[in-house]
Amino acid sequence: MGTISDGWHETSVRVRYKDTDRMGVVYYGNYLTFFEVGRAELMRALGYPYSRLEAEGYQLVVTEASLKYQGNVGYDALISIRARVGGLKKVRLRFDYEVYDQGGNLLVSGYTVHACLDSKQKPARIPGALKEVLHPSAG
Amino acid sequence: MGTISDGWHETSVRVRYKDTDRMGVVYYGNYLTFFEVGRAELMRALGYPYSRLEAEGYQLVVTEASLKYQGNVGYDALISIRARVGGLKKVRLRFDYEVYDQGGNLLVSGYTVHACLDSKQKPARIPGALKEVLHPSAG
Amino acid sequence: MGTISDGWHETSVRVRYKDTDRMGVVYYGNYLTFFEVGRAELMRALGYPYSRLEAEGYQLVVTEASLKYQGNVGYDALISIRARVGGLKKVRLRFDYEVYDQGGNLLVSGYTVHACLDSKQKPARIPGALKEVLHPSAG
Amino acid sequence: MGTISDGWHETSVRVRYKDTDRMGVVYYGNYLTFFEVGRAELMRALGYPYSRLEAEGYQLVVTEASLKYQGNVGYDALISIRARVGGLKKVRLRFDYEVYDQGGNLLVSGYTVHACLDSKQKPARIPGALKEVLHPSAG
Repeated sequence: MGTISDGWHETSVRVRYKDTDRMGVVYYGNYLTFFEVGRAELMRALGYPYSRLEAEGYQLVVTEASLKYQGNVGYDALISIRARVGGLKKVRLRFDYEVYDQGGNLLVSGYTVHACLDSKQKPARIPGALKEVLHPSAG
Repeated sequence: MGTISDGWHETSVRVRYKDTDRMGVVYYGNYLTFFEVGRAELMRALGYPYSRLEAEGYQLVVTEASLKYQGNVGYDALISIRARVGGLKKVRLRFDYEVYDQGGNLLVSGYTVHACLDSKQKPARIPGALKEVLHPSAG
Repeated sequence: MGTISDGWHETSVRVRYKDTDRMGVVYYGNYLTFFEVGRAELMRALGYPYSRLEAEGYQLVVTEASLKYQGNVGYDALISIRARVGGLKKVRLRFDYEVYDQGGNLLVSGYTVHACLDSKQKPARIPGALKEVLHPSAG
Repeated sequence: MGTISDGWHETSVRVRYKDTDRMGVVYYGNYLTFFEVGRAELMRALGYPYSRLEAEGYQLVVTEASLKYQGNVGYDALISIRARVGGLKKVRLRFDYEVYDQGGNLLVSGYTVHACLDSKQKPARIPGALKEVLHPSAG
């Protein structure tokens, strides 16, 4: 599902009819779904799938999201989602994203910030084992 | 949010940009969301909101869904969702739906069948208190 | 993205957080999105992507959809969507679907019926070139 | 559907099962749909529904979106979406948003920036008649 270089992991996604809106292109909110796919595949590639983190009793709750839209694509386009760890603190974590069309044009860039919560929904330090795999890919 | 007559409860929903696809009309799968809104508002109107059922440890899991599409509408249309209890058994329950545009044209009709599960995810009799309020509206 | 055998084409999709609901499993309406992915990849595999049909001025409008739910899966599950042409008439076309989890358990089965419309939104015969590639896979 | 005070327009939306994810609360990306509802109802309340703008050959394309998440709510919660015009230039326009739960707790705040395009998809001055109604509500 992709490779990592310079900390960026790349995943391809095909735009579905469901993703488009009446302007004929991807609905703006759906890029946050593509960001989700990007960070999930990054974590899987790093050997620590998000589902493992949940199985261990943690959650990464989104505290911030930001998107810049420079282009858009329509039905059946094959887009490329790049994700990397943009910042890592005790409790918080930032992912950066870039979405490209097949011609290599940047469509959307952005980031999300997440706080780690434990099973009681309290802020918790990001588990050491996760920090270790995330660290090398920080920009 | 609506009234009940002949067992049918009616709810109005405004079509969002998010609901449309590149054909300019509502994406076919989103009518199952409108059906959800219809049955939720029907149950609320009957005095037994679905959230109460969940609070009591039950779930209504969908086992079947069927839709006939006769028309469609675009962005900003105000649609009317009609829902009623179409059938009621020990464990299972059927809801019927009709979605109309503002001119009174039938867009989509269909039904969903649900099985009642208890907190252990086992099939369970529909609680008596729910049956009592559902019964009067059966077609 | 898959192969064809016995007329069935198979595509794998990873369940996203976005696809789940508070029951922890895929929201029932999202299976119609998975059906869309199934038929889109079937048509691509047959050499006639749906986007080509649209480029030629046609649309396949859904007139009917039916789903039976026998199981469900949660976040990060890898599901397998099987699609085939279930019926072919002058103007109408039926696709059949089966969605399986990774253990080979059937989760959802169903079908959709589509009518071919021309660029004036009038019913039109399914183009001969499409009929030719669809025919061999009819069940 | 709401009133305007201090430039803020308020709309109520009921959280659907479809809106939630397996954490039991609203999926983070769906707040951009709630923002859409907020600005659509604001424009309608100002007497210039977005659909009118489109009918006149214009589009407001999103160029930027930003969200801060401070809380979240689950199924069936009634949330309140506040929207106002946050900035107005020749071609660009900013909307601000605040989403509250029923207890008056701020859940999510943010903004979107839009560029006006004409029917040829070129940047265009925001029509004078729209500017007139938007202006009074600028913060």
